Formats: sequence, structure tokens, C-alpha cells
Amino acid sequence: MNRERLQPVDIDRLRENIETNGEFGRIETDSGRGRTVLAGTTANRRAREYLLKQLTDAGLETKVDPVGNVVGRYLPAGADPGAAPVASGSHLDSVPRGGIFDGPLGVYGALEAVRTIDDAGIELDRPIHVVSFTEEEGHRFTDGLLGSSVATGLVSPEAMLDRTDADGTMLRTALEEIGFRGGDDIDATHWNSWIELHIEQGKRLRDAGASVGVVDSIAGTIRCTVDIDGDASHSGTTWMDDRTDALVAASELVGRVERTAKELSAADGGKTVATVGELDVDPGAVNVIPGHAQLRIDIRSTDYVNMETVVNAVLDELTRLEAERNVTTRFERPYDIEPIPMTARCQQALSDAATRAELEQLSLHSGAGHDTMHLAEVTDVGLLFAPSKDGASHNPKEWTDWADCADAVRVLTGALARLAADGSVADRLTEQ
Amino acid sequence: MNRERLQPVDIDRLRENIETNGEFGRIETDSGRGRTVLAGTTANRRAREYLLKQLTDAGLETKVDPVGNVVGRYLPAGADPGAAPVASGSHLDSVPRGGIFDGPLGVYGALEAVRTIDDAGIELDRPIHVVSFTEEEGHRFTDGLLGSSVATGLVSPEAMLDRTDADGTMLRTALEEIGFRGGDDIDATHWNSWIELHIEQGKRLRDAGASVGVVDSIAGTIRCTVDIDGDASHSGTTWMDDRTDALVAASELVGRVERTAKELSAADGGKTVATVGELDVDPGAVNVIPGHAQLRIDIRSTDYVNMETVVNAVLDELTRLEAERNVTTRFERPYDIEPIPMTARCQQALSDAATRAELEQLSLHSGAGHDTMHLAEVTDVGLLFAPSKDGASHNPKEWTDWADCADAVRVLTGALARLAADGSVADRLTEQ
Repeated sequence: MNRERLQPVDIDRLRENIETNGEFGRIETDSGRGRTVLAGTTANRRAREYLLKQLTDAGLETKVDPVGNVVGRYLPAGADPGAAPVASGSHLDSVPRGGIFDGPLGVYGALEAVRTIDDAGIELDRPIHVVSFTEEEGHRFTDGLLGSSVATGLVSPEAMLDRTDADGTMLRTALEEIGFRGGDDIDATHWNSWIELHIEQGKRLRDAGASVGVVDSIAGTIRCTVDIDGDASHSGTTWMDDRTDALVAASELVGRVERTAKELSAADGGKTVATVGELDVDPGAVNVIPGHAQLRIDIRSTDYVNMETVVNAVLDELTRLEAERNVTTRFERPYDIEPIPMTARCQQALSDAATRAELEQLSLHSGAGHDTMHLAEVTDVGLLFAPSKDGASHNPKEWTDWADCADAVRVLTGALARLAADGSVADRLTEQ
Repeated sequence: MNRERLQPVDIDRLRENIETNGEFGRIETDSGRGRTVLAGTTANRRAREYLLKQLTDAGLETKVDPVGNVVGRYLPAGADPGAAPVASGSHLDSVPRGGIFDGPLGVYGALEAVRTIDDAGIELDRPIHVVSFTEEEGHRFTDGLLGSSVATGLVSPEAMLDRTDADGTMLRTALEEIGFRGGDDIDATHWNSWIELHIEQGKRLRDAGASVGVVDSIAGTIRCTVDIDGDASHSGTTWMDDRTDALVAASELVGRVERTAKELSAADGGKTVATVGELDVDPGAVNVIPGHAQLRIDIRSTDYVNMETVVNAVLDELTRLEAERNVTTRFERPYDIEPIPMTARCQQALSDAATRAELEQLSLHSGAGHDTMHLAEVTDVGLLFAPSKDGASHNPKEWTDWADCADAVRVLTGALARLAADGSVADRLTEQ
């Protein structure tokens, strides 16, 4: 093998796959073209069928497991079929009214990397698996990361298949209806390593003028649910001093959450964020003082101590509100994931590939959660970011330039080749 | 006529009527027994049919107008059938999950007053009308005061009948279905005067140890709708400094409304109140920064200047939020009613009757709106309050002791007799 045999990433093929995938569940909005592809829907079936065809056309052996995870197995020239594979991919489901890059770039980027390696005839030691996990976004059956929680053995397939959506439909039924309750075993604990390519969903790469981001850690996430009970009473007949207004108390908590996160963020370079994304008021009538408010709070940081600091500020504020505003409060913390560092050798493989490709790179953390969080429990992991225009994400404005997609896939290709081989041979893949 | 012929208010009969009426739409809650009686529903039909039977059994001539207002006409001994009548009543509809006294006390209290007068054989000059207005609470077709707006000529029957509920059902259809789209004319502009007995829905009578409250004015009401637009974005990937969070801005507005109303209330003896009763957040997902918040604000006072002060504080806060938080805002003021004074001679009739009955009375304002507000546009009006336990209202905890109901009806009886006669004869009705 020599430099002349190296092929560039086929940007047109990658773009066609992502754009075709974007047709499934396509929506038109004031903000542009987007898609809604929830797990187990017709749009999801079409996206899956298209993926299977692309994997098969590329010569990959496909597998579908009981919760609908899909793997395409590539055996490079010279590879040992029994060696632990290097895996790469992401997800094809979307949030409601999401964009076309979040997830698909990682799946079709991994496929394109495999094709690039195959087109170049590179000899490698390990198989490479192209992976699409079920319901990463989690808007139907779970809070997210559905498929990777099963593939990593954190949740049993049977327990997951019994889960129901808001209408009572079981995951089992939804997958059977779209023909994607498979019988194969996909066991990530046997993987040598895992690399996920994803859009950044933030503005740091653009702001820094970097082409790719090599993630050093994924922020932890704590989610809290807070209930505040006051007294619902008549807005006209209850004097200001006689009120126990749940919404006024909730509003003070919203402010406290923001102030605390801003203070921490100013001290740690922006790595701590906290958000009250949901606030429901009951009874919610213009002429009734709110008797109940429920808030859901999302707290993230690369530093778990900072996450605890926000939680403690919430608890402190609730104590104050009970004392000063006479409300009663309840606090729950149903979701608690610590920050997760990426494996050094995977970061190195990505960073070296970017260097060889002479691309500007940035080391950064991920504020968003990814299937990679679950994979980190069972194997070595890396996460690569492509730049997001304006940082937009989870809406139709989400955009990554095709040239940036191609650069990111070049880096992914180099890293996968490095991980699947001894290194020296593959390193030339991404050289200029 | 002499003192010996005077009959006491029949507390058992009044109680039976209110309790029977409370069976229609009855609900059981953790807070006790309540009722849900929206206009034009089956529960409302049953409540109306029961009322018609009570009116007829008492010898009153009944009328039902096109929007379902009900009148029972009582012609006292000696009265001129052509004289402008004195009218009294309230409403039978309730808020969702409301109590059994709000409305029915005024309707059945007026009927009991007429029966007491009739049982005593009192000779009076004017007819007395017992009135039940359609949808005072306004949870289906209007924001409230539906029936009185038609009876006073403020809205035409045809315009009102065309109004639809949230499901698209027209008032016309709903009334036809329950058999209460009547053909009679009920014209309040011909009434000599109007007295409404209602529960206080506040704590002032209980706090003052008073048996009845003679209302001097009804607070005005301004309702505003505020929309705040920020940027919906990912809760994990958007740094604190890059956010335009609509909910954080809305929370500051909630606090400003409360602070302003508290300051005004402290200065005017509690007569100004302001409430944010509704706050809706969009998209309302735990992992998305709120991009939009809508608030509905209810502002009331006996002093219109104070109401304007709250509105100006809201506008000032919106200007500040646009400048400091980069949100965009919209402000609407779809509902604006000035404070309404009660007529001096009606207040006097009620106050004199309470004095003759040797009951503790309190002169106070009404923070709640009532059909009496519309009647004030076309005739002389008075409003009488019975004490509410704990000030509870618009929920099943609403309660007025039966003895307090009886005392209030005694005062109502005396006032109606005074207004329907020259005064001297009727005055002895409520003497001890």
C-alpha cells in the first residue's frame, strides 16, 4: 500500500445518504427543512430499511438485535474475523422537529469511513462495525440511549421491550410492526473500541475556527423534579398578604438556578450549565392563584462537584421558600450520570488523524449526552465533533457544511484505521 | 300586617335547595364535596329544571330567554303588575371543581326571600324577580358574565348564541340540547333595582366577626397577555452566556408583578391585587432551553390608577427584559373593566336591614367580579356578602355556615322588601 492508493472521502455519497435519510419523516417549518423520526414509526422503518440497503450494497454483513439496533460488519483485507471489532456509528432517530445531521452523520460517516478504507484496499487487523442504535433521543419509550443501554448489557432486552410509549404501545409491538425486532446478538462488551462522530450542537468549533473537535469528556447530567405546593385561591378576593402562590415561589427558584449556574460557569470556563426546561402551573387559570407548580431542572458539567453545587443551591432555595413563602416542596433526582472521560488512546487516535489531515482541531467537552456514555462503561471510547452552524441543534436550523462533514469523516477514517490496525500502515490514510 | 305575621327565614328549605343543587355535577375530591356545572351541560340542565320546579312550586311565573337566563316573577300582595320590578339572584353554573355555594346561595336566597315575604303576606308595590343568569363563571363559551351581558343589552342574543366552546359547539346548540334556549324576553334595563347575594370568597367578614358584608364597590379588572420569545436551544450545549431563556425572563416578570402589587396593597389597605395565573413554556422539555413563555396576568383594584400602575410596571419590566435579556416581547390587554361603585340607596337598604336584624355588618369591596357589574350599567345595584370559611372559593373547600346563610337571607329579604315598597311597612320584616 502507498499514498497513491488512498482515496478521498466520497463527499457526494455521504451527502446523498444524509439527504435521503432526511426525507424520512421530513417536515417543512418556518425555520427550514427538518425531520421527526421517533423510534418504531413508519419514518423510522424507512430510515432503517434504507440503511440496511446501504450496508448491504457496501458488502457489509448486517445484524439486527431484539431492540432494533443495527450493525453492519466490515471485514478489512487481512483482518482476523475473530478479533474484537472496532465499532463506530450513532443513531437515526430524531427529536420531534429535529434536524437532518444529529445522528445520521455518525452512522453514514462510519459507513463512508469503511468504504474509504475498503476502496483503498487497506489491510487491517480487526473488523469494523458500523452501528445504528435505537432511540438515542428518547422521545417515545425512554429518556434516551435506549439501544446502547441494551447493547452494553446495562438493561436486558426483555425489560426494554416491555416499555410502553404514552399511548401504551410496547416497544416490542412497535418494533414488530416495522419489522425490526431482530434475532441477532449485538454485544458491545466484546468491542475493542468505539468511536462516535456527531455534530457539536454548540458554537465552540466555529468560534475557534476549528474543523473538528476531539472530545475529552462528556458532561454529567443530573435531572431534578421539583414540586411546589401553595394554595390555589381566587385572584380577586385573596389579599396579597394572604397568598401562598406556587408560581411566585417557582419563579424565584428559576432565578436561583440561573444565578448559580452562571457563577459556576464564569469560574470554570463555561463547563457548567443548568436549565429549567419545564414549568407547569396548576390550575393554570388567569383568575386563580397558582396552587401548584412543577419544575424539571437539567444540570450538566464536566465537574461533578459543580453539579452537586447546583443541586445544593436548589435544595437551599426550597428550604428558604418553605420558610419565607409558606409553600411545601418535594424534590426528586431521578437521573444522575457523572461526567465521563473519553479514553486516552481513542482521543489520541482522533487527534493524530486530524494532525495528519492538517485540520485545525479543538479539544473540548460535550455538553450533550450520547450513546458513547453507555459504551464507556464496557469499552474504550472516543467522540469526534463536526462544527454546527450557529450551534443550532434539535431544530430544523441545525446545519453542518458538507465540507466540514467530509473533513470529520476523514479524521474518523484515520482514527478507525489506526484502532483497527497496528497504526503505522493506516496512518498514511489521512495524509495529504 | 303586624310583627306577629312575620315568618323567619326557612333555613331548612334554603339548605335543601342548595344541597340538592349541589348534587348536579357533584364530585368528590380530597378536599371534600364539590361540583362541576358548566353552562349547557347535563348537570346544568338538571340544575335548571330543579330551579324551574322550585320557582313554580312557590307560585312564581317563570321565563327563559334565548341565552337561557331564568326569571321567576313574584307579584306580592298589592303590587302593581306593571311597576318596574326589583330583581335579585345570581347564577347556577360553577367553575370546574367548584363549591356548592358560589352562585346558588344568591339564586335560592332570593327565592327564599320571596317566600318569606309571601308567607308573611307583606303588601309591596313592585314585583320581585328571582333571577338565574347563564354562565357567570365563564369556563365554556365566554370569559364570564354571559347571561347578564345579554339581559342588560350589552351583547345581542344572536351574537352570543353564535359563540363556541373549545370543541366548536355553539352556545345555541348546547342550550337547545338541554332545552333551555327560551323564547321569552328578559330585559334588565326595565328593572327598578338589582340585589345580588353572594359568598364573600375572602376572609374579611370572618376576620372582622361580621355576619354580612355590604359591598361599596366591585374592583375593576385588567387582564394582560404577555408573550416572551427567546431562543430554544440545547440545554447541554448552550453556554450560560449564550442563552436567551424565555422562562428566566418570564420569572423575573412574575416577581415584578408581585412586588408591585404588594407595594400598592400595603399603601391602599389591601385593595389592589395582581396575579400571574397562567404561565406556559414552549417547547417545555427538560433538555431544551425555553424559547417561548406566555403569561396571563390578572390585575384588580377599587382604584383604577393602581391598576394602571401595575400595567405600567409590567410594560417597564418588558422593556428592561428586552434590553437586558435580549428577548422580544408582546403585550395585549384584552380585558379592561373599571371599578364599579354600588348604588347608595341599595347599599342603604342592605345596611338598614342588617341593622334592623341586629347583625354585625362590614362595608367592604368585592375583589371578585359578579353579574352585578353588568347590571350596574342599566339599573341601581347592591351586593351582599355572606362569610366564607377560610376565604376558600372556586374549590370544594368553599363553605358558608347554614346559620350565616340564613342571616344573609334575612338581610336580603329586608332589603328587597324595602326596595319593592315605600319602606316603612317592609322594614319590620327583619326586626327581632
